[in-house]
Amino acid sequence: MAPLTEVDREPDVAKPSLAPLIRLLAVDLEEVNRLIVERMQSPVTLIPQLAGHIVAAGGKRLRPMLTLACARLCGYRGSRHVALAAAVEFIHTATLLHDDVVDGSDLRRGRDTANAVWGNKPAVLVGDFLFSRAFELMVEDGSLRVLDILSRTSSVIAQGEVLQLITANDTTTSEDAYLEVIEAKTAALFAAACRIGAVVADRPPEEERRLETFGRNLGIAYQLIDDMLDFGASQSELGKSLGDDFRDGKITLPILIAFARGDGDERTFWRRTLEDGDQRDGDFDRALAILARRGALAETLARAQRYAAAAAETLAAFSDTPERRALAEVAAFVTDRGF
Amino acid sequence: MAPLTEVDREPDVAKPSLAPLIRLLAVDLEEVNRLIVERMQSPVTLIPQLAGHIVAAGGKRLRPMLTLACARLCGYRGSRHVALAAAVEFIHTATLLHDDVVDGSDLRRGRDTANAVWGNKPAVLVGDFLFSRAFELMVEDGSLRVLDILSRTSSVIAQGEVLQLITANDTTTSEDAYLEVIEAKTAALFAAACRIGAVVADRPPEEERRLETFGRNLGIAYQLIDDMLDFGASQSELGKSLGDDFRDGKITLPILIAFARGDGDERTFWRRTLEDGDQRDGDFDRALAILARRGALAETLARAQRYAAAAAETLAAFSDTPERRALAEVAAFVTDRGF
Repeated sequence: MAPLTEVDREPDVAKPSLAPLIRLLAVDLEEVNRLIVERMQSPVTLIPQLAGHIVAAGGKRLRPMLTLACARLCGYRGSRHVALAAAVEFIHTATLLHDDVVDGSDLRRGRDTANAVWGNKPAVLVGDFLFSRAFELMVEDGSLRVLDILSRTSSVIAQGEVLQLITANDTTTSEDAYLEVIEAKTAALFAAACRIGAVVADRPPEEERRLETFGRNLGIAYQLIDDMLDFGASQSELGKSLGDDFRDGKITLPILIAFARGDGDERTFWRRTLEDGDQRDGDFDRALAILARRGALAETLARAQRYAAAAAETLAAFSDTPERRALAEVAAFVTDRGF
Repeated sequence: MAPLTEVDREPDVAKPSLAPLIRLLAVDLEEVNRLIVERMQSPVTLIPQLAGHIVAAGGKRLRPMLTLACARLCGYRGSRHVALAAAVEFIHTATLLHDDVVDGSDLRRGRDTANAVWGNKPAVLVGDFLFSRAFELMVEDGSLRVLDILSRTSSVIAQGEVLQLITANDTTTSEDAYLEVIEAKTAALFAAACRIGAVVADRPPEEERRLETFGRNLGIAYQLIDDMLDFGASQSELGKSLGDDFRDGKITLPILIAFARGDGDERTFWRRTLEDGDQRDGDFDRALAILARRGALAETLARAQRYAAAAAETLAAFSDTPERRALAEVAAFVTDRGF
């Protein structure tokens, strides 16, 4: 028998993926993508060039899909969720542009970052532009509740990013402080993206809170895995450089676990490489060896799975619809993804 | 007779100043300053430190004063204009933080810039924070009209800043392109600050447009003088480094005028210093000499005065109140300021 072609091959049924969600939301998602491209236009041609580089390419559109799916889960049948999903993606993209400048990153989603191609200056300014466009979209929608949620979320994100700068290079960072950083810089937007699905569907506060909690737990799980993958995935799978966080001296959960479980020699190693920024050939490999010895990546994964399970449980209060099943699969996917 | 002390000395009556405006708005302005300090707080202490460095120190508060004064000029007697004035100042401050990062500036208002003290990373992120806080203030106020005006203004500002990057180092920039840059990066926020004074006072569209025009002309005059002062004021008066724009290769009106009026040698000089970025000892002095010979600073001043006069004329349609007189004096002040 001939080998199966790419097209014929059945996906591994046990492997959770975003495919059911993408299938369910195909029409809405196409509208979101159309709107994103439309609203990143400007007579200043460098703007759509640079924005297109990051916005229109490669992203999973996970956050806008959450808005779309949560609105549908809440029985929403209109089209306002499309513009709000685009606003969520613009806020996310603006944050990415500024993050990459702040971190001096060269690679994202397997491509050169905007700052690597065009320099920091336009990357900062186009971030500002996309952020403004996000608010324009919300204003056109006209919901002050959504504007309230997303403006407060934006300031929480910025505060989380600054807190991350402060905890960088500090091996005495507590797990609580680390969780505070990832809740603010990542989980807050997941939570808001889900919550506005309920807002647009005009659902009671209880339902808003439930989706907010779903998004927050999902976002924490997502970020834990992201931090783990910095030590654990191949560069081509991750789409960003392996060991970036380590080289930046970022204090993430794998490090905190390994540090807490480590002996004197290991702590001296972490202090030299992360606090003093004194990194030598072979240090990253040694870091990987210590993380493995201390079970730090396995423990990070276990924690992420707990947050993902909590997220999935929150969905139990909703009727069993394709949207609910697809969202539950997202929770499984984020702890199972290779990127 | 003993010489007059600083306190006794009468201000030069012929010299326009912001004093009447500041006097008229004293109570409102104190509320704005209180609100600014309150809303730049965060448990992440680096944020109020950095924001306080730029927000709470030295600024003229010109833009928020325009919002306050225009609201009063329109007969507004409430207090909503205070929060909106603070929002305008936050947008302005966020822009300054990002500008200084983009330009690599060390000095602003006679003090080290935030990026010079804390580095680029927190300066970018605190800019994002203040920008978000501006929108939080507007959302609390609850006017979708104001949100519409200021979100669109913010994206115009970002577009102007990117356009400025593109025209930098390009001596073939047209005066129209230059005007487009300064209208977007500076005059748009002046225009919006004035316009929302009419919006908050619930005045008819005609009055909104009039104040918008006043602000736009005032903002253009202000930026023309700013560009002139880069070549014309002492460093202590200007509060920023003299010749910063020249060193950055920014193409401003004085340069465009001198280039248009210049001979072959002078154009070669401008191309070398501004396009090729090849600047040597004595080049800035030579630039000053050429600008003087070609009357470029005088012509820039004359143009600024025309915009300022147009701004003042727009006020004629309003009744002759202390607010109107103080705003007219602002128009005279911006072309007469030494900083």
